[in-house]
Amino acid sequence: MKVLKNRYRQFLYSCFLSIATITLAQAELPLMPYPRSIEVTDGKYYLDQSFQINLGEVMTNRLNEESSLFIKQLVEQTGLFLNYRQVNSAVDVADLTIKVDRFGIVKMGEDESYQLTVNESGIALNATTDIGASRGLMTLLQLIDGDENGYYVPHVAIKDAPRFQWRGLMLDVARHYLPLETLYRNIDAMAAVKLNVLHLHLSDDQGFRFESKLFPDLNIKGTDGNYYTQGELKDLIAYADQRGIMIIPEIDVPGHATAILTAFPEFGSKDTTYVLERFAGIFDPTLDPTNEEVYAFLDKLFGEIIEVFPAPYFHIGGDENLGKHWDQNADIQAFMRSKGLETNHELQSYFNLRLQRILNKYDRRMMGWEEIQTNELEESAVIHSWRGAWEGAEPRASLYHAASEGYETILSNGYYLDLIFTAEDSYRVDPAPSSADISDEERSKILGGEVCMWSELVVPQTIDSRLWPRAAAIAERFWSPEAIKDVDDMYARMEVISLWLENFGLKHISSPNRILRKLAAGHDTAPLERLLALVEPMKGYTRNPGGTMYNTFSPYTKWADAATADALGARRLNNQIECYLNGKMGCGQIKDDLEELADNHGQVQLIIQDSPSLREIEQLSANTSKVAVLAIEAMNFMETNAKPNPKWFAEAKELLTAASQQGGRTELQIVTSITNLVAALEGEVK
Amino acid sequence: MKVLKNRYRQFLYSCFLSIATITLAQAELPLMPYPRSIEVTDGKYYLDQSFQINLGEVMTNRLNEESSLFIKQLVEQTGLFLNYRQVNSAVDVADLTIKVDRFGIVKMGEDESYQLTVNESGIALNATTDIGASRGLMTLLQLIDGDENGYYVPHVAIKDAPRFQWRGLMLDVARHYLPLETLYRNIDAMAAVKLNVLHLHLSDDQGFRFESKLFPDLNIKGTDGNYYTQGELKDLIAYADQRGIMIIPEIDVPGHATAILTAFPEFGSKDTTYVLERFAGIFDPTLDPTNEEVYAFLDKLFGEIIEVFPAPYFHIGGDENLGKHWDQNADIQAFMRSKGLETNHELQSYFNLRLQRILNKYDRRMMGWEEIQTNELEESAVIHSWRGAWEGAEPRASLYHAASEGYETILSNGYYLDLIFTAEDSYRVDPAPSSADISDEERSKILGGEVCMWSELVVPQTIDSRLWPRAAAIAERFWSPEAIKDVDDMYARMEVISLWLENFGLKHISSPNRILRKLAAGHDTAPLERLLALVEPMKGYTRNPGGTMYNTFSPYTKWADAATADALGARRLNNQIECYLNGKMGCGQIKDDLEELADNHGQVQLIIQDSPSLREIEQLSANTSKVAVLAIEAMNFMETNAKPNPKWFAEAKELLTAASQQGGRTELQIVTSITNLVAALEGEVK
Repeated sequence: MKVLKNRYRQFLYSCFLSIATITLAQAELPLMPYPRSIEVTDGKYYLDQSFQINLGEVMTNRLNEESSLFIKQLVEQTGLFLNYRQVNSAVDVADLTIKVDRFGIVKMGEDESYQLTVNESGIALNATTDIGASRGLMTLLQLIDGDENGYYVPHVAIKDAPRFQWRGLMLDVARHYLPLETLYRNIDAMAAVKLNVLHLHLSDDQGFRFESKLFPDLNIKGTDGNYYTQGELKDLIAYADQRGIMIIPEIDVPGHATAILTAFPEFGSKDTTYVLERFAGIFDPTLDPTNEEVYAFLDKLFGEIIEVFPAPYFHIGGDENLGKHWDQNADIQAFMRSKGLETNHELQSYFNLRLQRILNKYDRRMMGWEEIQTNELEESAVIHSWRGAWEGAEPRASLYHAASEGYETILSNGYYLDLIFTAEDSYRVDPAPSSADISDEERSKILGGEVCMWSELVVPQTIDSRLWPRAAAIAERFWSPEAIKDVDDMYARMEVISLWLENFGLKHISSPNRILRKLAAGHDTAPLERLLALVEPMKGYTRNPGGTMYNTFSPYTKWADAATADALGARRLNNQIECYLNGKMGCGQIKDDLEELADNHGQVQLIIQDSPSLREIEQLSANTSKVAVLAIEAMNFMETNAKPNPKWFAEAKELLTAASQQGGRTELQIVTSITNLVAALEGEVK
Repeated sequence: MKVLKNRYRQFLYSCFLSIATITLAQAELPLMPYPRSIEVTDGKYYLDQSFQINLGEVMTNRLNEESSLFIKQLVEQTGLFLNYRQVNSAVDVADLTIKVDRFGIVKMGEDESYQLTVNESGIALNATTDIGASRGLMTLLQLIDGDENGYYVPHVAIKDAPRFQWRGLMLDVARHYLPLETLYRNIDAMAAVKLNVLHLHLSDDQGFRFESKLFPDLNIKGTDGNYYTQGELKDLIAYADQRGIMIIPEIDVPGHATAILTAFPEFGSKDTTYVLERFAGIFDPTLDPTNEEVYAFLDKLFGEIIEVFPAPYFHIGGDENLGKHWDQNADIQAFMRSKGLETNHELQSYFNLRLQRILNKYDRRMMGWEEIQTNELEESAVIHSWRGAWEGAEPRASLYHAASEGYETILSNGYYLDLIFTAEDSYRVDPAPSSADISDEERSKILGGEVCMWSELVVPQTIDSRLWPRAAAIAERFWSPEAIKDVDDMYARMEVISLWLENFGLKHISSPNRILRKLAAGHDTAPLERLLALVEPMKGYTRNPGGTMYNTFSPYTKWADAATADALGARRLNNQIECYLNGKMGCGQIKDDLEELADNHGQVQLIIQDSPSLREIEQLSANTSKVAVLAIEAMNFMETNAKPNPKWFAEAKELLTAASQQGGRTELQIVTSITNLVAALEGEVK
């Protein structure tokens, strides 16, 4: 980690910091989420193969398992040979002493705080609960560094506790099924960055992934054979519980229900046959809220699911029901008139209230996407705020509305990682900034937030690089104090943490590399890597126009699937250019980098000849090399105070426009900074 | 693939071929295993997104599933958007027509042949069985290439069938448990290279991995919690069957039985308590063959296992029982005297014959390591030949002995991939070369061979790079005609196939890369990659002296775990030096490569400062750069006809001796060729 860590330290003094807003004393260690309070002092506590743990007097299963897992991680991270794996018994003289007061319960509001002190006498981890201790162990792993004398932990005194109690990750396992090992490794990664709720979106138009023994057709007809057995889910839930993570189920109704309706078309609002959906979008199949058998069915199904999921929350989805089939169904229209329900939203509200009664019976709190909120909804419901600019809504409006009406609520708008916005974009979103005009009472209703990963365009092989390391930045937003918000500092730490996260089995680095090796067709991948570092997949819903360019069978082994949401190469180059424009010297080897880029397309072209799949980036690659040449020319003009003619500017603008076009469903991220460079030159000329 | 494929074609004319023995017309396409007969003609059949399959008149479940899997692979390999995944129905005009006569049964001797014809009218795959068709589909995937016009299959006429019927892979899931996903992806890789037997070594001193419902203590006490449930195994077996692969269980008795004895110490030959083994080696705990309850127990246990594994073979292990506890047990000695059993081997033979009776009852053929062969053994037994030079035995002696006594037999000596010999080493081993002095009858008893992967030093994260791509080369030995044996040709094809195997989810390339990223501690990994390409892990049993340097808890994330058995960088450099010594020109950029190497240590040192785990390779790295300098000096002397003084030679030899020492449990593979270079110089000087 040293180089990245050094790079991180150096960045405090780097030129582009001068233009960043520094909002707090800079973090001194690459921890993420950054602790609430940390004092770093001189000194290092060295680790060697004699490393021992003392677990104190209060011993719990979780503490035992988590400390053993810590040992495994420590061994793999450092390569130290510790001749044990299971921390079974207390030892007198220990390097690490962990003391807890009691076992923790995986629930909202549980005490997750911890204190971690490292000094010359060793490492002391104290926590009220074993969950808090488990959080502290992850911080400890992040603290381990190496120097010429070995591995060590710097002397620190950390006091830490979460800002928000609900720090979730939603995985859409319906559209593309995620095998269990994908879930397990992501649970480990969640624990590594102190996330504590895994929300499984178990059903949608493309699949029903919970094994129903009562209604096996939900799996037989409602999937291509991929679903989780109840036993598998119980094991998963137990493992997550050990890691201090609650798993909550979502069965999305009454819309997003095609998979259910393939098994039970009689519960639909239209007399038709239903076929499992392969595309992405908002579809019409909807449960019939006027059919009593629908409630009987859902009662039994929910009961079966609740037997498996002990969490006190049950997510009923409830989003994106346009009600077209309701409009077309005369019986439903008659029902609405008879009940005095004037709109589809009122009809859905009727449906939701019926479900709330069922869930109350099972002692579960209903949770749903923001559309479920109506006046009649009982206050025990939890409102999941998701809509924003893309949906023509004010971000967080539904969050604050829910809080103002007395509902507990969590935020996901801004945290939809499948939309491929940058870590910075999500990091800047705060569920309840101090500047928000809300009462303390309302503020207390905002439990936190959830990262969302909808899976229209991801498969098991690519999901890690879509989730990580961005989810770590959002985890920091949920856990760390509001004041921890410097973006450049976050990026510098995120690079360190991204490498560290590989220790938990994540494929977020290896998977894009594998795709590049395939695309390179036996060539050296370096030219592709150079270009890939400058592009990001098309954002929002633009990559998959109309939801029909891709379907569940499409290849997800293409250029855009190797690209990630944060083009760090572009970020560096943009910072260099910004630095150059501010001070014109000491901005890294900017021209060397641009020269290399200028030559890159020739090498990419040689690869494309042998790799038809890459034909789609030929223009993108050519334009990238061309704008690199343009940037060099602009700098040369500026440095020599020479004046390009108007034709040069006209061609430059034409080229920059061309370079902003997508290629291989990705977009070049250095166009703006080079446009700024050209504009600056134009300003000088004028 | 193009560059590697081109490199492969060019290698036909490359200088080092001049010194290779060409035993057959060179393979023209990078297929592995190479087909029995292939005619390549001019012409390419291009593939696009309209690609369709016609499955002919005889439809089987396997054909349906395998052709769907083919579509998935085709889509991922080419990035073509085919809007279907399940090949359900015949289409009139198809690009690929697959015709089979009948479904196949996964058993020895089943027809696995196929004919694959590609011409301007399309691709025709014909086979007697759907298993043969499935083999042909893998060849078809290997044939796909790309050019400026798109993806295509070259026009070919292939007639193919296996040479040996038993083409196995043994995985030791006892010493280090392998999660199911590891097994699944390796089954896919096995199918990709036409292996057809997966032998699971389910029990050993370190663990008992079969879920026994009759004897749950085997799992509770005999593992750390990791074992396969019966349901998981049934699913795995069904999947393997679809892929034309038979899974056979091994329960190793009477030795290697510590895990069993942790649960049932009363079945041991010594009155003691047994503790699960953590180290590697041959241990004393042994079942008591004089105890009738042992047979009653094994009868029930085998019965339970046989319910899960339908294969007609049951492997009882039977290896490496030294019988120390038998010698020490007076009752056992008395038993032997009463039965007239003079040696421990005779006692074990008594034990084996009892087991054979049990297995006969269950209609299973007993299989065991070569030690089980005795005069009394029924001819239905299958002898697994494994001992060789490391065990003071003549390689294949037990194979031929078994055949001569009328037993069917398979070979694993030479195919122990955990011993980290090169692909070449294994590739040169033929179970039944035409030169062998054996009768046709004996030859017919040699069913084939098995790759073995013992897991003392591998974990799920590293096993793929220990197995692949070497197992592909051995698969070729088992499948292809004896005459396909040119080593350089094999390596050239293996590089192409290695990349292709990543399409099946193997981590054999990504896993070493991940370890290097960890070891590089934030630095660029290039200097480490350069060195890693020149080293191989210590071979045979030398890496883990006495079986005690490592245990099941050790870190397998170190330098040696990133290194692989074939240092391809060293192989290239050695070929260049050999070429240089033969002709002295046109041997690649040999001096540039050596200069780069000479500078490498300085960069490695910068990394080591921050990565204590790499301290162990500091000397290795330094010596590598020094011998590179030495090689350059030697060449310069030769080219200028200058004569170094004796001191130079003395220092050179000292350095070469030092450079042959292990570092980080790996060995530098360029010492011999540079020694040859120095010797050649010395020869010139004399």
